[in-house]
Amino acid sequence: MTRIADLNQEDLHALRLQVRQEYDALRARGLKLDMTRGKPAPEQLNLANRLLALPRDGDHFSETGEDARNYGGLQGLPEARALFAPVLGAPADRIVVSNNSSLAVMHDSLAWALLKGVPGSEAPWSQAPWPTFICPVPGYDRHFAICEEYGIRMRPVPMTGQGPDMDAVEALAADPAVKGMWCVPKYSNPTGEIYSSETVQRLAAMRTGAPDFRIFWDNAYAVHHLTERRHEVGNILDLCAKANNPDRPFVFASTSKVTLAGAGLAFFASSAANVRWYLARAGKRTIGPDKLNQLRHVRFLKDEEGLRRHMDSHRALLVPKFNAVLAALESRLAGTGIASWSKPEGGYFISVDVMPGTARQVVALAKDAGVALTPAGATWPHARDPQDRNLRLAPTYPALEEVRAASEIIALCVLLAGIEKHCEAQEKGH
Amino acid sequence: MTRIADLNQEDLHALRLQVRQEYDALRARGLKLDMTRGKPAPEQLNLANRLLALPRDGDHFSETGEDARNYGGLQGLPEARALFAPVLGAPADRIVVSNNSSLAVMHDSLAWALLKGVPGSEAPWSQAPWPTFICPVPGYDRHFAICEEYGIRMRPVPMTGQGPDMDAVEALAADPAVKGMWCVPKYSNPTGEIYSSETVQRLAAMRTGAPDFRIFWDNAYAVHHLTERRHEVGNILDLCAKANNPDRPFVFASTSKVTLAGAGLAFFASSAANVRWYLARAGKRTIGPDKLNQLRHVRFLKDEEGLRRHMDSHRALLVPKFNAVLAALESRLAGTGIASWSKPEGGYFISVDVMPGTARQVVALAKDAGVALTPAGATWPHARDPQDRNLRLAPTYPALEEVRAASEIIALCVLLAGIEKHCEAQEKGH
Repeated sequence: MTRIADLNQEDLHALRLQVRQEYDALRARGLKLDMTRGKPAPEQLNLANRLLALPRDGDHFSETGEDARNYGGLQGLPEARALFAPVLGAPADRIVVSNNSSLAVMHDSLAWALLKGVPGSEAPWSQAPWPTFICPVPGYDRHFAICEEYGIRMRPVPMTGQGPDMDAVEALAADPAVKGMWCVPKYSNPTGEIYSSETVQRLAAMRTGAPDFRIFWDNAYAVHHLTERRHEVGNILDLCAKANNPDRPFVFASTSKVTLAGAGLAFFASSAANVRWYLARAGKRTIGPDKLNQLRHVRFLKDEEGLRRHMDSHRALLVPKFNAVLAALESRLAGTGIASWSKPEGGYFISVDVMPGTARQVVALAKDAGVALTPAGATWPHARDPQDRNLRLAPTYPALEEVRAASEIIALCVLLAGIEKHCEAQEKGH
Repeated sequence: MTRIADLNQEDLHALRLQVRQEYDALRARGLKLDMTRGKPAPEQLNLANRLLALPRDGDHFSETGEDARNYGGLQGLPEARALFAPVLGAPADRIVVSNNSSLAVMHDSLAWALLKGVPGSEAPWSQAPWPTFICPVPGYDRHFAICEEYGIRMRPVPMTGQGPDMDAVEALAADPAVKGMWCVPKYSNPTGEIYSSETVQRLAAMRTGAPDFRIFWDNAYAVHHLTERRHEVGNILDLCAKANNPDRPFVFASTSKVTLAGAGLAFFASSAANVRWYLARAGKRTIGPDKLNQLRHVRFLKDEEGLRRHMDSHRALLVPKFNAVLAALESRLAGTGIASWSKPEGGYFISVDVMPGTARQVVALAKDAGVALTPAGATWPHARDPQDRNLRLAPTYPALEEVRAASEIIALCVLLAGIEKHCEAQEKGH
């Protein structure tokens, strides 16, 4: 396609008319498609259906002879911790296995930091003046929602393609009010980018104004590859320890997008001091996690190789959907100069930067044509994208044919909104 | 037996010698028994073993067609809420089903009250001066531990046999600093007592100094009867609503001692406003609970009658154990005037009031003889029993023969410590 910005007024208006007609035709089809949330599709959940009859009547002892049906075992079964140790990059004794939600583990870590402080805190974070988090943007709306819930200030930092802009991060981290930072280091939500070695090294070694600064390292997509290449990121726990900041990272992960989204396992991994702290807090909250679900997962996945094979099956289902979105964007928008998008090698999202000032309009147009998108702005703190530019596409849940249809509409809406914005600008210019 | 206090010095010393010899003989047996925690026995867990192969591959849709394997469903499956509505005394739409721990639901309710306040709060509780809870004693150590964790002051109130001393409760509740109260209304932990209608009515109607006062109504033993009589307590939700205090009660329950202690369901029930508040908070913490475990429970228990039959099977296993403890206490201590104990008609504990100043000594003697007891003082805030008098016996977990052996030792330790205390007093008296 031609660059829209290069069109003269006549050509621009002609194109607008044509694209508007195409849009109206698509809208007339009365579709109802949903590309809002990063949910696994039913066929992905089917891959783990054997879990629904596990661990089986009579199979309830852990390898240490613990009755997984009863109370206790706050840290989680040793075999479950061992199975996921490679995913977390931590030894089993520095891993905690929790119930079905890593978001809950993150929430609790932050709530406890607010109410009690963390190792190294002089006071609970809620008593510190203006506790603040560094928030790489675009980022994960549920991270930001926890901060918003508890009045934690959020300072956005742009993503660079190698992770967050580390000059900006280091400048912010020097402020003692800055207590923490959200990171999705691999196949980041939503940009898909992978933190570079240098980024991770700088995060581990940087000077922080707060002695109790914590990196909330949400490794949600650790094994969620979309290519043959299983990307690795630097081991934040090891690098922080080497940089003499052993207590800096809280590492989180889950099997929500490995086994079953609603009935998986969540993990916390950190330094020995942080794990002791976490267990001391968690021990006031519960007598122990659901260990039968841990046994169920161990029986089903078996070992690292089993996990790898399972993720390969996910990949086979997901790649065509991601390709469908990318093909539609490419065919409609390449060369127009009004949008750019990520080509992720893993994770659950495609991030689209549309023409500034049109993201909300794109969502509205798509909605009118029967395609539900994540609200514009969702990838920013307080849902305010200052440039009204970023969209997060979630192609995993709908069937492939629906992803194709929805992507066609989305690409057209991006184009239409961009063209109309150019028309507006031209009119104003005259 | 003779009242110990009536013995003359000579007889007392002779008895002391005899009881000490009996104790030494028992100690020489080198037993290793544990009566510390209210854990279900393996045979009780076996009653629910069918859960370990449920809901079965292919059975993952709720009655409304929701895929229980995926994200979402924050309030819990409708059929799970309906199944437990009679237990909670609330309609299904005012029930939330959570993961495996009601303690966690209580913890979160309190943590959120501290960080955010509850409906009717002028400020988060953590910003109120000296937030305080009324704590009926003896009570549940894990309730007190949550208060201690967050610096909430605890004001003990004695139990009367009809629930807490309501004159004392009403006097304390008039203080605006008093934000809440712990209650285990049925088969209370550890006294086994059942709140009378008058007690519940007064709790519902009393004036509170804090407009955002909350009763934490931990109905942990709602269906855990030890007799044919299924005792009922007043419906706190209805009574509070009638008294124009609809938001006063937070009701909690779980299936930890119904199905599987580590893999059950937990419940929150309250007014519409409180449920909205709870869900708004919980929605920041998680995308939803483990709904497969809810389906598993519905498939297994089926209906109210299924639940009743299941609890009858528990009763058949538990009654002999409770009887063994009561028989040992009766045979050793009746008429001695040095101890009194509860004869619970439900729940998980027997509460023993030993001679003041001897509870710790009894625990030490029992430990020496190979019987682990809950630490003396555990039933009081900060684990400080001002009279060093209350012991909590937990006869559910050990096998019947072990309960018999342990009870014999415990009764003897109570007697020995009481006699020695009397000897001490006589010596001081001379």
